[in-house]
Amino acid sequence: MTAVGIDAIEIWTGKLKLDLPETFAPVKDEDPEKYTKGLGLYASSFPDAHEDIVTMGANAAYRLMDRKGLTPEDIGRIDVATESAFDNSKPVSTYIAGCLEQVYDGDFHHANKGERKFACIAGTQSLDDAYNWIKAGRNRGRSALVIATDTALYARGDPGEATQGAGAVAMLISEDPSLVELSTEQGYGSADETDFLKPNQQFPSVDGKRSMQVYLARMREALEDFESVAGDTHPDDFEYIPFHTPFPGMVRKAGLLGYRHMIRGTDVEDELAEEIGRQPREEEYDDREAYEEAILGYMDELKSTEQYQSWYSETIDPTLDISREVGNWYTGSVHIARASALRYASENDIDVTGKQLLVGSYGSGAQAEIHAETIQDSWEEEINDSTIDEQIRDRYDLSFEEYEQVHDRHNHDKRVELGDFTEPEDEFVFTGRGEMDERTYQYIE
Amino acid sequence: MTAVGIDAIEIWTGKLKLDLPETFAPVKDEDPEKYTKGLGLYASSFPDAHEDIVTMGANAAYRLMDRKGLTPEDIGRIDVATESAFDNSKPVSTYIAGCLEQVYDGDFHHANKGERKFACIAGTQSLDDAYNWIKAGRNRGRSALVIATDTALYARGDPGEATQGAGAVAMLISEDPSLVELSTEQGYGSADETDFLKPNQQFPSVDGKRSMQVYLARMREALEDFESVAGDTHPDDFEYIPFHTPFPGMVRKAGLLGYRHMIRGTDVEDELAEEIGRQPREEEYDDREAYEEAILGYMDELKSTEQYQSWYSETIDPTLDISREVGNWYTGSVHIARASALRYASENDIDVTGKQLLVGSYGSGAQAEIHAETIQDSWEEEINDSTIDEQIRDRYDLSFEEYEQVHDRHNHDKRVELGDFTEPEDEFVFTGRGEMDERTYQYIE
Repeated sequence: MTAVGIDAIEIWTGKLKLDLPETFAPVKDEDPEKYTKGLGLYASSFPDAHEDIVTMGANAAYRLMDRKGLTPEDIGRIDVATESAFDNSKPVSTYIAGCLEQVYDGDFHHANKGERKFACIAGTQSLDDAYNWIKAGRNRGRSALVIATDTALYARGDPGEATQGAGAVAMLISEDPSLVELSTEQGYGSADETDFLKPNQQFPSVDGKRSMQVYLARMREALEDFESVAGDTHPDDFEYIPFHTPFPGMVRKAGLLGYRHMIRGTDVEDELAEEIGRQPREEEYDDREAYEEAILGYMDELKSTEQYQSWYSETIDPTLDISREVGNWYTGSVHIARASALRYASENDIDVTGKQLLVGSYGSGAQAEIHAETIQDSWEEEINDSTIDEQIRDRYDLSFEEYEQVHDRHNHDKRVELGDFTEPEDEFVFTGRGEMDERTYQYIE
Repeated sequence: MTAVGIDAIEIWTGKLKLDLPETFAPVKDEDPEKYTKGLGLYASSFPDAHEDIVTMGANAAYRLMDRKGLTPEDIGRIDVATESAFDNSKPVSTYIAGCLEQVYDGDFHHANKGERKFACIAGTQSLDDAYNWIKAGRNRGRSALVIATDTALYARGDPGEATQGAGAVAMLISEDPSLVELSTEQGYGSADETDFLKPNQQFPSVDGKRSMQVYLARMREALEDFESVAGDTHPDDFEYIPFHTPFPGMVRKAGLLGYRHMIRGTDVEDELAEEIGRQPREEEYDDREAYEEAILGYMDELKSTEQYQSWYSETIDPTLDISREVGNWYTGSVHIARASALRYASENDIDVTGKQLLVGSYGSGAQAEIHAETIQDSWEEEINDSTIDEQIRDRYDLSFEEYEQVHDRHNHDKRVELGDFTEPEDEFVFTGRGEMDERTYQYIE
C-alpha cells in the first residue's frame, strides 16, 4: 500500500509580537512568571495591519509551493481549517486560491476547495480527509494543500488574553511523502461539551477550568480508542508526542496523563513501584471518587520521578519551542508542535528516520484525535528549509498601546484603519473591501 | 473493490410553509406566475419557533437511525454541512450528537464529528469525504452520517426572498449501500468568485445575474473535468440528473447547457442537424464573443426541439418535485433533487436498478462538483420509507404577518420570543440558551 502523509510544511507567523513578561505583565500588574512559568509562554504573535487569515495562509502556501517547485496543476485539493472565518458562506480556501492565481500562470479550477470548522482540531481533520482522498484513489497523482490559519483573539481583559496568537501552517499531503507517513489507525474521544464556544461572536466564551478537564478527558478517550486498533502504547514507542498546545502549561498536564496511561502494566510501572508504589486499580477502591483521588496522588508522585522528567524533557518539551514564542494558533497549533520537535531533532543531531510520532490533536466543543506518524528519510532536509526562526526573530515588538490598536484592527465589529508596522515584501497583503464587502488582496514584490 | 455509497436518506422539512402565489405575491403586488412559472417555486419551508438547524438535522438523523435499526456504535463519523451556523467554533455535529445521545443508551464518543462550509456544495463535499474515509479503510466496519441542514433566509425585501427555505437531509454512507453507489471519478469546476457571500453577516449579499453565470460556468468546467476521467457523457447514459436547485428555473438553464454539451459530436447532434443545424464550432468564428453568441442562438433553438423537451421532462423535471414545494435548502438542495427523482421512478413504476445518475452539486464562491451514481437493488424500499410527502402536506400555512414573525425569530441579530405554530411530537426541540449562550435541546415524546 502506498505511503501517504505530509510531504512538506511551511509556517507563517503574524509579523507582530506582544512580549508577555516585558510588555503585557507590567500593564496587567502581574508577576511575569505567571506567563513564563505558569502558562509557559513568552510572547504572542499578531497579524500586522495588512495581514489576516487569508494572507497568512496564502503566504505559507506560496512559500511551500515555491520551495517544492509546484504549479497549480499539481494540487487537486485545498482545504482550509479555521475558527476565525469572516464569511458564513464563502470559504477561505477560495480567497487563498485567488491569491495564488495572481502569481502563477495556471489555475486551481479543477481542485476541490473546502473549509473545516471544529475549534482547534479542524487542521488535523483536514489532514485526515486529504489522506483519505489519496487512499481512496481519487487524487489522480496530485497532492492536497491543507492550510490551518487562525487569528486567536480574546476580548481584552479576558483571562485568555495572554494566550492569544496568530499564524498559519501549510502542509502538502502526498503519496510517498518526504516528512512523515500517517497511520491508518486513529483514535477519537468526542463529546458534546460547553467548554469553549463562539455563539455568533468573534471572541470566545470560555469556562477555563472545564476546558482543561475536557481536554484531558477527551485525550484519554482518544488514546484508549487508538490503542483498541493499534495495540497498547509504551513510552519507548514514540520519539516525540506533539499535542495541541493552547499554552505549554496545558501540555504538561496532558504529558503526565499520557505517561501514566502508557506505563500502566508495563516494565516502567514495575521499575517505579519501589519508589512510588504501583498505580491504583479501580477494583481496589470503594467508589470512583476514591479511585480518582488515588490516581491524582500517584500522578503527583510520578511527576517528580527521574524517569518521568527525563521522558518529558526528551519527548514532550521539544514540541513546545515555537509555541512558547508565538502563543496559540488554534488549528495550526499541533502542527507547529510537530515541526518544533523535528527542528529540535535536527539541531541536536538526533537521527529520527523511521521513528514514530504520536500526534494528539484537540478541539474544544469537544474532540481529541490521536494517530501515529512515521518519520521519513528526507525529514531533515524538509524541516531545515523552514524560515520560522528568522520570522520569529524579525517580528515587530509592540508597545501595549500598539497592541490595543492591533487588537481593534482585527476586531470584526470595528472598522479601524491602522498603518503598517512592518514593510510588506514578497508577500500577499490585505488591500481593502470590494463592492459586496468581499476582502481584496494583492501580491507585493 | 467494495461498493461505497448512500445506504439511506431521510428528509426533514421545516414545519411551516409560506405560500408564494397565495400569500407572498399579493403582499408584494406581483403576478403569482413570477414565482410559479419564473422561478418554478410554489412554497418555501420555514422552521417553527422550536426548530433550528440542529433540531432539523437531529430529527432527520434520528428517523434514519431508527428506521435502519442503528445504534450509536454503528456510526464512526458525523459530518454536518451548513452555511447557517450559529457558532464560529463549536460544530453543529456536536449538538446533533448530543441530541441523539438523549434517546440512545450508547454514545458517539469514538465518532469523528465535523463541519464543512462552502455555500451549498458542502453537503456533497461531506458525502465525498465519508466515501473516502471508508475507501481508505479507516471506518472499522462503521458507517458515516452526513447531515446537510440549513435555514436559507434573505433580508426581507431582498430579491432572493422568494427563494428561501429550511430543512435537513440526513444520509447514511456505508459499504454495500442500499440506495446508490458513488463513482470514484469526480469532476470539479472551481474559481474565486464574488457572486454570493455573507461577510460577518447572516443574510447573503448576492449579485443575482453574476451568480447564475457563475453557476453555469463552473458546472460546465466540472462536467469537462468529469469527462476527462470518466469518458465522454451522452444523454442516454443517465436516468436522472439531479442538480443543485436554488430554484427550479436555475436548473432549466443548467439542463439545457448540459444537454448541449453532452450531445456535441454524437448521434443526437446529427439527428437534430436537419432541424436546427449543427452546433457552432469555435474555429469557425473570428472571436470568442461571436462564437458564444452563436452558441446562445443554437441553444435557443435546441430548447424548442422535441428531443430536448422529452429528455428534460424525463431526466431533469422529476428532480424538481420536492424543491418546488420547499424552496432552497442550500446544502441539502441537490440531495432532495436525487430523492425527488427516485420517488418519481417509484411512483411511475420505472425500474431504475443498475441505472446511472449524474449528480451536479454547486456552491457559490464558487465550485461545482459532478460525479456519477449507480442505483442499487434495494433503492425502492429505501425511498418509499420517506415521509416527506406527509411532512410537506402537514406544514402550517403562514399568513404574511406570521411569516414576518418567523423570519425575525430566526434572525440572529434579534432575540424574539414566539409561540409554536405546530405541536412538537416525537422530535427534538430548541428549548433556550444556557449560561455560556449555548443553545439547548430536548426530545419531546
